[in-house]
Amino acid sequence: MFKVTFAFGDGSNTEAFCHEGDILLEVARGANVVIDTPCSGNGTCGKCLVRLVEGELLTKRTLHISDEEFEEGWRLACMSRICGDVTVFVPDIASAYKSRMKIADLSSGKEISIFNNAKSEIELAGIELANSLDVVEVDMNPPTLDDNMPDSERLARALRKYLNLKKCTIPYTVLRELPDVLRESNFSVKCVLRATPNNIFVYDIFPKEKDVVICGLAVDIGTTTVSAVLINMENGDILAKSSAGNGQIRYGADVINRIIESRKPGGQQKLQDAVIKETINPMIHQMCRHAGIQTKQIYRMCIAGNTTMNHLFAGINADPLRMEPYIPTFFKTNALFASDVGVDINWDAHIIVAPNAGSYVGGDITAGTLVSMIWNRPEFSLFVDLGTNGELVFGNEDFLMSCACSAGPAFEGGDISCGMRATDGAIEACTIDKETMEPTYTVVGDPGTRPVGLCGSGIIDVICELFMKGIINPKGKFIREGKRVRHDKYGMGSYVIAFEEDAGSPRDVEITEVDIDNFIRAKGAIFSAIQTMLGSLDFDFSMIEDVYVAGGIGSGINMKNAVAIGMFPDISLEKYHYIGNSSLTGAYLMLLSTPAEKKTYELAANMTYLELSAVPSYMDEFVGACFLPHTDASLFPSVEAAMGENSN
Amino acid sequence: MFKVTFAFGDGSNTEAFCHEGDILLEVARGANVVIDTPCSGNGTCGKCLVRLVEGELLTKRTLHISDEEFEEGWRLACMSRICGDVTVFVPDIASAYKSRMKIADLSSGKEISIFNNAKSEIELAGIELANSLDVVEVDMNPPTLDDNMPDSERLARALRKYLNLKKCTIPYTVLRELPDVLRESNFSVKCVLRATPNNIFVYDIFPKEKDVVICGLAVDIGTTTVSAVLINMENGDILAKSSAGNGQIRYGADVINRIIESRKPGGQQKLQDAVIKETINPMIHQMCRHAGIQTKQIYRMCIAGNTTMNHLFAGINADPLRMEPYIPTFFKTNALFASDVGVDINWDAHIIVAPNAGSYVGGDITAGTLVSMIWNRPEFSLFVDLGTNGELVFGNEDFLMSCACSAGPAFEGGDISCGMRATDGAIEACTIDKETMEPTYTVVGDPGTRPVGLCGSGIIDVICELFMKGIINPKGKFIREGKRVRHDKYGMGSYVIAFEEDAGSPRDVEITEVDIDNFIRAKGAIFSAIQTMLGSLDFDFSMIEDVYVAGGIGSGINMKNAVAIGMFPDISLEKYHYIGNSSLTGAYLMLLSTPAEKKTYELAANMTYLELSAVPSYMDEFVGACFLPHTDASLFPSVEAAMGENSN
Repeated sequence: MFKVTFAFGDGSNTEAFCHEGDILLEVARGANVVIDTPCSGNGTCGKCLVRLVEGELLTKRTLHISDEEFEEGWRLACMSRICGDVTVFVPDIASAYKSRMKIADLSSGKEISIFNNAKSEIELAGIELANSLDVVEVDMNPPTLDDNMPDSERLARALRKYLNLKKCTIPYTVLRELPDVLRESNFSVKCVLRATPNNIFVYDIFPKEKDVVICGLAVDIGTTTVSAVLINMENGDILAKSSAGNGQIRYGADVINRIIESRKPGGQQKLQDAVIKETINPMIHQMCRHAGIQTKQIYRMCIAGNTTMNHLFAGINADPLRMEPYIPTFFKTNALFASDVGVDINWDAHIIVAPNAGSYVGGDITAGTLVSMIWNRPEFSLFVDLGTNGELVFGNEDFLMSCACSAGPAFEGGDISCGMRATDGAIEACTIDKETMEPTYTVVGDPGTRPVGLCGSGIIDVICELFMKGIINPKGKFIREGKRVRHDKYGMGSYVIAFEEDAGSPRDVEITEVDIDNFIRAKGAIFSAIQTMLGSLDFDFSMIEDVYVAGGIGSGINMKNAVAIGMFPDISLEKYHYIGNSSLTGAYLMLLSTPAEKKTYELAANMTYLELSAVPSYMDEFVGACFLPHTDASLFPSVEAAMGENSN
Repeated sequence: MFKVTFAFGDGSNTEAFCHEGDILLEVARGANVVIDTPCSGNGTCGKCLVRLVEGELLTKRTLHISDEEFEEGWRLACMSRICGDVTVFVPDIASAYKSRMKIADLSSGKEISIFNNAKSEIELAGIELANSLDVVEVDMNPPTLDDNMPDSERLARALRKYLNLKKCTIPYTVLRELPDVLRESNFSVKCVLRATPNNIFVYDIFPKEKDVVICGLAVDIGTTTVSAVLINMENGDILAKSSAGNGQIRYGADVINRIIESRKPGGQQKLQDAVIKETINPMIHQMCRHAGIQTKQIYRMCIAGNTTMNHLFAGINADPLRMEPYIPTFFKTNALFASDVGVDINWDAHIIVAPNAGSYVGGDITAGTLVSMIWNRPEFSLFVDLGTNGELVFGNEDFLMSCACSAGPAFEGGDISCGMRATDGAIEACTIDKETMEPTYTVVGDPGTRPVGLCGSGIIDVICELFMKGIINPKGKFIREGKRVRHDKYGMGSYVIAFEEDAGSPRDVEITEVDIDNFIRAKGAIFSAIQTMLGSLDFDFSMIEDVYVAGGIGSGINMKNAVAIGMFPDISLEKYHYIGNSSLTGAYLMLLSTPAEKKTYELAANMTYLELSAVPSYMDEFVGACFLPHTDASLFPSVEAAMGENSN
């Protein structure tokens, strides 16, 4: 047995023991050390860099590491085998996705308004904000020798009478507590229950004098990030909000690599544990502490995630999703309970799953479509979710068409050397002076927060500014020189937004030609998907009344710039609306409102799916869109005009 | 820490570690060493004898141990504290209740006929032997790019079409297996399901070619003994039968001591574990191995037990049962599932609980009443269950009255020095020669099995013969001398049925005056209960058309002798029928037949309960019945006549 010590930037360590020949990446995974592996350890992405501090590793060299870097001790964890005791440094900054769990500050109201707006809009559409959970007070006569009815019959009788319903189910969890709570409270209690027209189901029982909050939990399970809100089920108030990196990230950055990993022995359990035990449960405990409630007071949960994510959450074989004919195990299920999958909430709590509409259009999109409200008007609108996959839904009150394209993780900062999510330290907006090429940027976080990296909206701005100010050409290559523009020995250009001394990290915050290329392909995938979908309907961009943009790209997204780089169609900017994390907001609505839940099933069932790869023109349109803004400049008249102005 | 070694008669050992001052009995319990403690460790019953082999114990002396015995090393485990390393011998024979788990041999048909008879009788009463479990074959078209419906929707669609029902629930357990089983079987499967008028619930899925048996499990949870049958739910065939001592026995012999024990910290869990994890689950595994099925193929379970037993099984506080106004948590519940309590059968299996009719008339009696069929005729009949409590139900098709009396464990061999259950080695029948006083007996087991002790039916015979042959007087005291009759130094008489050299155990099989006294009190409780109950209705014994006797007393019960000792009323012997373990047979019927289950709820709901202690004459009648056969000899004319004959 050899000892491997993983050292972190904050001075902390994790130790693990392993055998000779074990792969360092696997050792790290076993020890819960997160190392980014977008390619899932195939040696192709070059992201899993660690630096040798002490000892040796047997490393297979790849092109991702220069001689200089190798000299400095940099190694790919997936290509290194253990040959003795060793200490490696795991660079924090290397993790584009890594994020500590974070409880949102709800005091400002900014975090809350998005949910309040969604509530108002759904109510305006005539969908009631009502669910079947309720808390009722019941006073019973204590038993006597003459009135010796058992506890459960006594409670059921009282509830049936109170609610005028015939059937009452007292599940095992409540039965177990019943004799003690009844006697402690002298037979005056509060019950949390679900009352449907046929049945009362009792979730919980408390002494009457206790203040009881009925809580619910909405969770957006993103491939990269998991976000959740803990809510009061009676009025929809947000009690806590939290987000964290999806613990599955160490098994691959995208759904395909996750599925492959889940098919290894014990993999299904590992992937399920990574998202539930390591990610969601700690978030639940943190939120409950924050809100001052017990976890068992969460009586309902709703998850929204793409089809692979909800299959892996449920511990269900997702392999058929990645192989023709791409069949999920379920679109919707109403048979999932907290006790089935070990989510730390009330044992009997039902887990609502936002329905999948296809293998590549999952519950995140159907929930998001609900929030977009595009289904509620005669005009045609477009809903775009910029996740690790880009998904689009287009339509109106009469029809909905969806499609999905592989955008990669660039919108959330993945595949970008200094990319990161839209959290503290992320540059979310930027302008560049045409003459000096000096940037001006704003950073997410408290005033004075120093930049650490770029989130999606920041990348759009930087690329747009570089392009509009003539620093890069339409192919994303640098065509001007300057203090901030440099080229490495292979000739690859980059632009430094923040030098090390100004940054909150131990290196420059920069954007490279590779980054720009990755982002151009991501935006190109989105634009060509929009183009292809509308084309398939014989529609043009002028038919689009509104565009609702969702995703973790950052609330600072500058729609003008997004149009300018050719990510979105060149239509009036007033038509663009950023609606934040619509998957989470949709889960919130489905949780809070049973009619909204039903509406989402209806939307999912009526959504037509367009398989882009089956449309012959798609690839041509994609290639055309991999330019700034596009090979066909006539598609972007306003950009042409602005460029003209700019060059004056 | 000190080491305690428990040595057993078979030469095996168990070691445990403990602290100075710990009570030996608690150390034994912690180490799963079974020592009888009818009084639950209060030092009052004197049953928890162990013999010091090496080392010392700090023992508080009680009257239960003579000086001689103390010299020999005998100590009460409940009165001894640890003061150093020690080895104690735990006498096997001391355990009147102890029994190894036992799979019944079903080949003879004797074990089976009782269930077949019950099936016939219930069918004759117009109650259908039908339940909602079924296995159906479904062939689906495998998915294609054009027919890309998800697996669960595909299966649900096929089942709904096949069964012409609207709703289909595919629970998590099946969802998890679905993609693999469907692909392994090329979408031709067998489903085990419950089909009710409104819903299909899928329990299990197999490839079509597999032979699938739908199994069910009926369990009688006795205070002393647990018995179970594994059955084929389609035809009621018995696949395996097993019995074992209730693992709770080490926490006390009767329900009151068990409840007290369950109220200690962690006690509820300990008592539940003792009956489920230590008793029922091993029985299940053994029966499934025997029958060659997987435990998950048990899709339904029915338990019958007294009110305390079913509360402790469910891990529910039973304390209110023993304190005025004696309120159980439930009479009936339909909310108990295998996953709730950790029974090793299908996770989603519903556990039917034979309904309680009162705190002291439990599911064992309501299930037994179903089997007795006394509710199905105009004539009045009596059902008597000779358990640790004696319970009676009297009535006809119009009414049912029940009562309970504390008989103690004597009928199952408890409280009797050489008592044992009716298993291998038990003397089940006996005659004694009037002149020589030599006994002739039959022993349960293969021919040649040597006697180890006496089961209930054997005790009845021995006492009856001793009495009828003038060896003991009506008070149960020895009045003749002989080789087999002896008195100890305190003057207590005893009769040896088998001397050590003939016995299968290392000591004489005998019956003492204390044993006889205990048994007389037990039979007196039963007789006076019958007398009091009939009296409360202004009925006399001549109104009884039939008497159905159930319980672990042994199938060899000689009704003539039972009448002769004054246990049962002196009516025509043809009216008496031994129906075996009616609690288990009733659980079997409720499991197999949903109409029988409903009938049992109806019987329980309509049963009137007579609280004997509230009837002023009961105590007098009990005192009168504590004689052989009774102080009022005119109640037993046939016994008087026989005695007269005998003395000629």
